[in-house]
Amino acid sequence: MSKRPTSPGAEELLGLYFPVLDHGFVSLVDYMGTDDCIERAARVSYGYGTRKTSQTRGLLRYLRRHMHTTPSEMVELKFHCCMPMFVARQWIRHRAANVNEYSGRYSLMPMLFYTPSEEQLQTQSKSNNQGRSGTAVSEATYREALRRWETIRKESQSAYEWMTGEAVARELARIDLPLSTYTQWYWKIDLHNLLHFLRLRVDKHAQWEIQEYGRVMAGILKRLAPLSYEAWIDYDVCGARLSRGELDALRSLVGVEGEGLTVKNGAKLDAAGLEKLGLAKREARELLDKLVASEVPDFELDLSKAKPAEAFAERFAKAVPKVDKPPVE
Amino acid sequence: MSKRPTSPGAEELLGLYFPVLDHGFVSLVDYMGTDDCIERAARVSYGYGTRKTSQTRGLLRYLRRHMHTTPSEMVELKFHCCMPMFVARQWIRHRAANVNEYSGRYSLMPMLFYTPSEEQLQTQSKSNNQGRSGTAVSEATYREALRRWETIRKESQSAYEWMTGEAVARELARIDLPLSTYTQWYWKIDLHNLLHFLRLRVDKHAQWEIQEYGRVMAGILKRLAPLSYEAWIDYDVCGARLSRGELDALRSLVGVEGEGLTVKNGAKLDAAGLEKLGLAKREARELLDKLVASEVPDFELDLSKAKPAEAFAERFAKAVPKVDKPPVE
Amino acid sequence: MSKRPTSPGAEELLGLYFPVLDHGFVSLVDYMGTDDCIERAARVSYGYGTRKTSQTRGLLRYLRRHMHTTPSEMVELKFHCCMPMFVARQWIRHRAANVNEYSGRYSLMPMLFYTPSEEQLQTQSKSNNQGRSGTAVSEATYREALRRWETIRKESQSAYEWMTGEAVARELARIDLPLSTYTQWYWKIDLHNLLHFLRLRVDKHAQWEIQEYGRVMAGILKRLAPLSYEAWIDYDVCGARLSRGELDALRSLVGVEGEGLTVKNGAKLDAAGLEKLGLAKREARELLDKLVASEVPDFELDLSKAKPAEAFAERFAKAVPKVDKPPVE
Amino acid sequence: MSKRPTSPGAEELLGLYFPVLDHGFVSLVDYMGTDDCIERAARVSYGYGTRKTSQTRGLLRYLRRHMHTTPSEMVELKFHCCMPMFVARQWIRHRAANVNEYSGRYSLMPMLFYTPSEEQLQTQSKSNNQGRSGTAVSEATYREALRRWETIRKESQSAYEWMTGEAVARELARIDLPLSTYTQWYWKIDLHNLLHFLRLRVDKHAQWEIQEYGRVMAGILKRLAPLSYEAWIDYDVCGARLSRGELDALRSLVGVEGEGLTVKNGAKLDAAGLEKLGLAKREARELLDKLVASEVPDFELDLSKAKPAEAFAERFAKAVPKVDKPPVE
Repeated sequence: MSKRPTSPGAEELLGLYFPVLDHGFVSLVDYMGTDDCIERAARVSYGYGTRKTSQTRGLLRYLRRHMHTTPSEMVELKFHCCMPMFVARQWIRHRAANVNEYSGRYSLMPMLFYTPSEEQLQTQSKSNNQGRSGTAVSEATYREALRRWETIRKESQSAYEWMTGEAVARELARIDLPLSTYTQWYWKIDLHNLLHFLRLRVDKHAQWEIQEYGRVMAGILKRLAPLSYEAWIDYDVCGARLSRGELDALRSLVGVEGEGLTVKNGAKLDAAGLEKLGLAKREARELLDKLVASEVPDFELDLSKAKPAEAFAERFAKAVPKVDKPPVE
Repeated sequence: MSKRPTSPGAEELLGLYFPVLDHGFVSLVDYMGTDDCIERAARVSYGYGTRKTSQTRGLLRYLRRHMHTTPSEMVELKFHCCMPMFVARQWIRHRAANVNEYSGRYSLMPMLFYTPSEEQLQTQSKSNNQGRSGTAVSEATYREALRRWETIRKESQSAYEWMTGEAVARELARIDLPLSTYTQWYWKIDLHNLLHFLRLRVDKHAQWEIQEYGRVMAGILKRLAPLSYEAWIDYDVCGARLSRGELDALRSLVGVEGEGLTVKNGAKLDAAGLEKLGLAKREARELLDKLVASEVPDFELDLSKAKPAEAFAERFAKAVPKVDKPPVE
Repeated sequence: MSKRPTSPGAEELLGLYFPVLDHGFVSLVDYMGTDDCIERAARVSYGYGTRKTSQTRGLLRYLRRHMHTTPSEMVELKFHCCMPMFVARQWIRHRAANVNEYSGRYSLMPMLFYTPSEEQLQTQSKSNNQGRSGTAVSEATYREALRRWETIRKESQSAYEWMTGEAVARELARIDLPLSTYTQWYWKIDLHNLLHFLRLRVDKHAQWEIQEYGRVMAGILKRLAPLSYEAWIDYDVCGARLSRGELDALRSLVGVEGEGLTVKNGAKLDAAGLEKLGLAKREARELLDKLVASEVPDFELDLSKAKPAEAFAERFAKAVPKVDKPPVE
Repeated sequence: MSKRPTSPGAEELLGLYFPVLDHGFVSLVDYMGTDDCIERAARVSYGYGTRKTSQTRGLLRYLRRHMHTTPSEMVELKFHCCMPMFVARQWIRHRAANVNEYSGRYSLMPMLFYTPSEEQLQTQSKSNNQGRSGTAVSEATYREALRRWETIRKESQSAYEWMTGEAVARELARIDLPLSTYTQWYWKIDLHNLLHFLRLRVDKHAQWEIQEYGRVMAGILKRLAPLSYEAWIDYDVCGARLSRGELDALRSLVGVEGEGLTVKNGAKLDAAGLEKLGLAKREARELLDKLVASEVPDFELDLSKAKPAEAFAERFAKAVPKVDKPPVE
């Protein structure tokens, strides 16, 4: 029983652990504030001399559109997450969060490793220098990859168990665990920074594995603060930033007429025309991409996929080497 | 009704507005987490291989003593506060908080000004270059100060009302309001940063007016997270940092014997001896101060002094100039 | 003589104090890094396996376009600034900076106050609820405002001088100084956060007085890191964020054809059409505004307007009340 | 040639790469500010009404002793560092820095792995639950550990080279590289936060490998800002925080007399006495430790150990798999 502002959608989620990848999870473990709290914080600015209209949705959209982000800092979310270390290393780059991570110096690491699925083992992208191409490798290559992962992990696990069995300091026993080893943390962040994190992490340029986490967290957000979620979809995820040159291109094609827009009949801009406006080749391609209709993603969660915390706790406890007694605090 | 971790002490406080100074207040409007949540966050590090002992108090004290502060970042508090602008200017220097302040550009300012009491109008301190001396000015001086404040405020208020009545932009109409004018904000911070803020602000070197706010917030903390509060009193408020030179001084007087301490009979250090150990005169004085027993403060709140939010809302609404219609958003 | 990366444009500015408003200033007092350093930081990511092309301009534009902002955090600027307190209160809201401000608790405040010019004393805007309208008040109103400012300041200054003369603690003597009183600080920030600050502060929605500071700082930036400045103008200042609905509107008017764009002849969207796409009335107006060509601002500095530091130091020293001896540290 | 404040000690270091561990390094690549700049920033607070005394050392010590840390935020340092990933994971937890790291998604990872020396492969500590004991494992155990590291790394390297040769996306090819793999970054931080980082990282509770980096950086600091370094040694590294209970224990043994300290002859506190004062057993042990004289560390650098940047660049370029062409940006 609490007098605090409560989000019915969030209450439903507390205690649910959503599986991500082969051994990971995301769970909302606590939260503070709701869509209404963002409005209330914004209304402080307007003070006693202002007529209070209760159009929460309109106000939240206005704030997001104009990047008045401080009111959304008034909502806070705390997650329990479990992910491979190479994902953790990308995640931790977002500095505006509070983190408590499982410590491989204190504790024995669970021997759980991430194995990419066949469809995800893809070739290097040629257009996006940091990502994968969308094309899976051949079945034979995948089989060989599986075999190699298995070998490495067997050797790593065996070395880890042997060293900790020999009482080697844990901080050293772990140094040859692969980056695919799972770790976990509590991660707390305010809504403004979460939205920034999610926009970057559900983006197709992010590594697919961290996208998977982003999608579940976006689904959690959709239930916790549905109006903020909707505004984020409309203004951030499905919006775009246009440069001066890109706007100039559009201005040469479309005119303002009264309260509407009209095209300038016959107007067109070919590659040369775009270049003339100062758009580099790559930038011109980006403008074209923005003008192709894109699907609106829906991060709706399937609650039936959630598991209780205990299911994961048990899996992890079993995966911890049984080589020695726990340290006494 | 919420499934979230709940602090019974905090629940009692929600909705209560504690008066501070002549027109200000502090109120806890929301919170996330409890002492137990700090333990839980710390336990993530120890993981599955650790025996879970439930000595929350011992663990919280250990964490604070060793400045393992990240688990206490997992608790968050949101306050509604109202204070004179010269206090707000000191307060805002703590950057690790989220703030939504009343806007004098959008809204009409309430004509409420802080008036120091007779006992607080003191002379400049000679030892503490930034503070007051503890000695009130003469009654005549106080009366003259009152008269001058009254004149200035009457002129300021009259100018503000006249300008806003003439439809002068509010952002300009306000520029000659005095620093004693009250403003207000929502202010959200995590427990680690709050404890840092409070240690600095309940300190005798802080301006007395902001100390008054610090003391109420410390009282709120005492109810919300009593174990964290106790550790903060014992390790921060009533603890001290000793330098190498100061420790050397003590080492020359006190020896370790077995599991205890014994003095070196007859040992003493005079001013020259302290200087020889590298302590500047001022530093030596500081060491002596640390070794004089100091009272343990108790920031217990008197709940009977609290008022409902409406009491303040009404006072402020009345103090807003009635000169024009509110802007339409 | 230094081996550090040096910006010739910045070196020219060191030591120059640019006047802002009637008594304020901005001066670049130190800096670290150049456009090249941003490129170098970005190249760390690409590592040893990458062909190093030296197209700094293209890379910097790419980074800014895609909001890869961490390399620009590698450049740091330190300013000495002096501004009225109501401006300082807006400025300090940007938390990602380091600040050392003149202390009214330690030191006597200079009696210098900001007086708006006749053309700047404008009425409250009706469309932009927080700003001024563009229309100056009548000459009579301005004269009356001047008279009132004069009265208030005379009373404030007299009270301040009297109180400090009576040895009243400075932290209290100052509480009725008006918000128009000048203060000053050292302010240090990285380039990424500076660009964010400047975009908000050279914007027409910011209070005109802080815009004046923003314009000088943008001019300093133009000389220190010309390529970053240019990218910021093209992508931030003269760019725009478009929402899903706004993009849908444009997609219904303009099509992609090969490597270029062609209008859909005869296509138009009136107010109703825009509303149908989900754009609220206000949002529709904002879209139209974005499609009207806007002037590209040029923040070029006129170096001949700069003064030496001493000119301001002298003015401020003279404005400090002569009522008592300075405190001894 | 620069007009900026220059630290002669730092200038000597620019461009020097100090080896750390078997393949790592630390290098100061840029800096802003000196000890004098900290004083200057602090003096802004004291303003025009203050006698300027030029006792930089005394002021810097005073500031540090009283944790007036904002002036030291006015100095900034930029490092180029190379470390094993398990070290990078500890390092990155300090959020108040700017980072640009080598990207394993864009670029091929150099096949360089950290191998602990025989004397560093120690058993788990019993008293410090997260660290090593000080006792090396047997020679046989070390030899077996070496053999196992070799096997794992051979398999990992072979898998990485094979996968990248098969054009598998780099972001996936790397997931089974061990945590001992070297990465590198540019890392920029202000002096205040650097001192906090270093105090934690040169501490004996930190993992020895990151201590090695901390020691080199402390040595760099000693040359860049010798007065700040000295104050940090005296107040932070060799100072201690004492709790209320610890101070009470000392107060029962030592009294203040005039301007000095005298012991209370015959006074002693055994384990029971310490417990009575509220000190838990562990806390009492900690007090005793603080009263045992500790050596003052000296982080003086040996410049003759430094190498040019090219030496490392070459080593890393050679260690990058030669399996494919670099991506074209």
